[in-house]
Amino acid sequence: MKLDSTRTLLVTQADLRSIVEAVGLDALMDQLLHALSDALRRFDGATTEVRKREGFMLDHPRQPGVLEWMPVMQRGHTVTVKMVGYSPLNPEEHTLPTIIATNSLYDVRTGHLLALMDGVFATALRTGAASAVATRCLASPGSTVLGLVGTGAQAVTQLHAISRLFPLEQVLAYDINPEALLSFAGRVGFLDLDVRPATLEQLEAQADIICTATSVAVGAGPVISGRELKPHVHINAVGSDLPGKTELPRALLERSLVVPDYLEQARVEGECQQLAPEKIGPDLVTLMKDPDRYEAWRQRSTVFDSTGHALEDQVVTGLLLEHAERLGLGTPVALETIGGDALDPYSLLRGPESGPARRLERRRAGGA
Amino acid sequence: MKLDSTRTLLVTQADLRSIVEAVGLDALMDQLLHALSDALRRFDGATTEVRKREGFMLDHPRQPGVLEWMPVMQRGHTVTVKMVGYSPLNPEEHTLPTIIATNSLYDVRTGHLLALMDGVFATALRTGAASAVATRCLASPGSTVLGLVGTGAQAVTQLHAISRLFPLEQVLAYDINPEALLSFAGRVGFLDLDVRPATLEQLEAQADIICTATSVAVGAGPVISGRELKPHVHINAVGSDLPGKTELPRALLERSLVVPDYLEQARVEGECQQLAPEKIGPDLVTLMKDPDRYEAWRQRSTVFDSTGHALEDQVVTGLLLEHAERLGLGTPVALETIGGDALDPYSLLRGPESGPARRLERRRAGGA
Repeated sequence: MKLDSTRTLLVTQADLRSIVEAVGLDALMDQLLHALSDALRRFDGATTEVRKREGFMLDHPRQPGVLEWMPVMQRGHTVTVKMVGYSPLNPEEHTLPTIIATNSLYDVRTGHLLALMDGVFATALRTGAASAVATRCLASPGSTVLGLVGTGAQAVTQLHAISRLFPLEQVLAYDINPEALLSFAGRVGFLDLDVRPATLEQLEAQADIICTATSVAVGAGPVISGRELKPHVHINAVGSDLPGKTELPRALLERSLVVPDYLEQARVEGECQQLAPEKIGPDLVTLMKDPDRYEAWRQRSTVFDSTGHALEDQVVTGLLLEHAERLGLGTPVALETIGGDALDPYSLLRGPESGPARRLERRRAGGA
Repeated sequence: MKLDSTRTLLVTQADLRSIVEAVGLDALMDQLLHALSDALRRFDGATTEVRKREGFMLDHPRQPGVLEWMPVMQRGHTVTVKMVGYSPLNPEEHTLPTIIATNSLYDVRTGHLLALMDGVFATALRTGAASAVATRCLASPGSTVLGLVGTGAQAVTQLHAISRLFPLEQVLAYDINPEALLSFAGRVGFLDLDVRPATLEQLEAQADIICTATSVAVGAGPVISGRELKPHVHINAVGSDLPGKTELPRALLERSLVVPDYLEQARVEGECQQLAPEKIGPDLVTLMKDPDRYEAWRQRSTVFDSTGHALEDQVVTGLLLEHAERLGLGTPVALETIGGDALDPYSLLRGPESGPARRLERRRAGGA
């Protein structure tokens, strides 16, 4: 990447619109699926240092949220940090997405902020891609029916990403919020799929693949019963992102191969909270490095425990920045006060009347 | 603050220049000294949640650095996060400051990034102010001679801030880097003070107040001998910011009242690393809430162990943003992909050819 050593490339909403226009949403998703698979397969803990998400618990009046940081370092190159807020009442109270984020890229040689971009689109995109990549390894290859429990923002990209890898014949949608359910077909109309509302019972009985992406409150799960599922069902549990917030019944987890995206984090915030350590399966990196080893599980019950992995943020940030640079998009801004005298924090900010002139002025005024 | 609920106010280097031009560096420092003293005195752990700095160790070829995050939350209002890099070889190798940072302000109601600003100037300013505020409580009121060990970027604001509170008659400067020492008088010329180079022995023997602000390597300290100090000397130890990096001799710490800015952090990265817990004095908040209690120490040896406190970043960010808003500075940017359909991450990015039109196109092409 040829980013500037003193300026910061801002990639805004408008730049993303231009990228999407130039590349197309399908091609962008396909590229991300490829890049993410590749990054997971090549993952090396000696060169990539991933930190568990940490943050503040936000005391929203009716339902708690979080504001968190997700840092990852490519040793010798860059640090990517996503700052991400989860505020479940946002859509209802502020007409804003539940998840708001920005992604930053730093140069490890100097600490300079190379680039800053939106993380709302990037997070939705990479969360969809992560589920799709896991689904390709864990679902029955003949899967054609997808069930979506929760039809909010994340469901759009779950469906989009999985539809790029599986020839979906039917999409069953369920949400406790009738408005979200009603608008869903329109939001995913661009995919030209057979999307229909379903009862939870129908969805559980008929889906080959299920994605749960809900704002269920802490302690209020599970969001599915797990009673009449297909024997080969694969579930992407996307919603759990808080201690105490889980979407799946424990019995289902205990009879399934549960693959966390990032074990250390999933044990704190994911479905893995509900499992004894020895009942947790391989993590996503382990799965991706040797998918054949787990192939028999494609005919049995599997769960991808998606809490969000900083590596995914690194990959999507890299991909979008690559497009921005190739297309000449983004605005370079002299944000940090650097580029002047490295030993003088005032050098770039002082007006001409400082220094000797000021001394002279003081003397004239008889000051000390 | 009247910041936008969907746009992010960028406060760049140029905006800071306009603020400095409008307000003046002295007035800005005075306002910060006032605001910081006030914030420390009013500090309430029930409403303000400060996180210890965490980050990545950067493997620079000759000397390690760090890239860290410093988060603080005002419950119910905002979160301020400074991302800060410490790269000791920056000046020499990249003509960049050792410390490069950006400060971000988030709305806790929604997670939205309200504002983003340079943190290089802000950090230098607030680090100077913190030392000055501590010095006012701990130094002998008649102090007139200041000694600076390390004459890099931070020394400029150490001197500036302390000169606003003490009538300095002489400034003794010492640095192992002759170039930094040579240029120092010019960099602080705007203060119109008697600044002269000194040997370390002269400086230690004559200074009433000493600031150590060096890039000494881990394990290579102390940077002063501590043998012939004035009995009432007050020292601001500013440089320690890494496990193992300390600037003062342990014996000096053991005979002094050592005031950490933030105890939990100072025990990991500050001079307090060298002290048994029971030998550590009150933290800066405790000192500021009841300075009279420690007044007798003004005639004895005292140390302010400054590792950098996220509260300081919050205060300086607030002050600079206040000026930016008052002066109509800063650029509001639609950075995050928010403001469209809260449930559709693609709504703001899709071109007009999505949805039904695309479906039609596909059918025409005979696609599935």
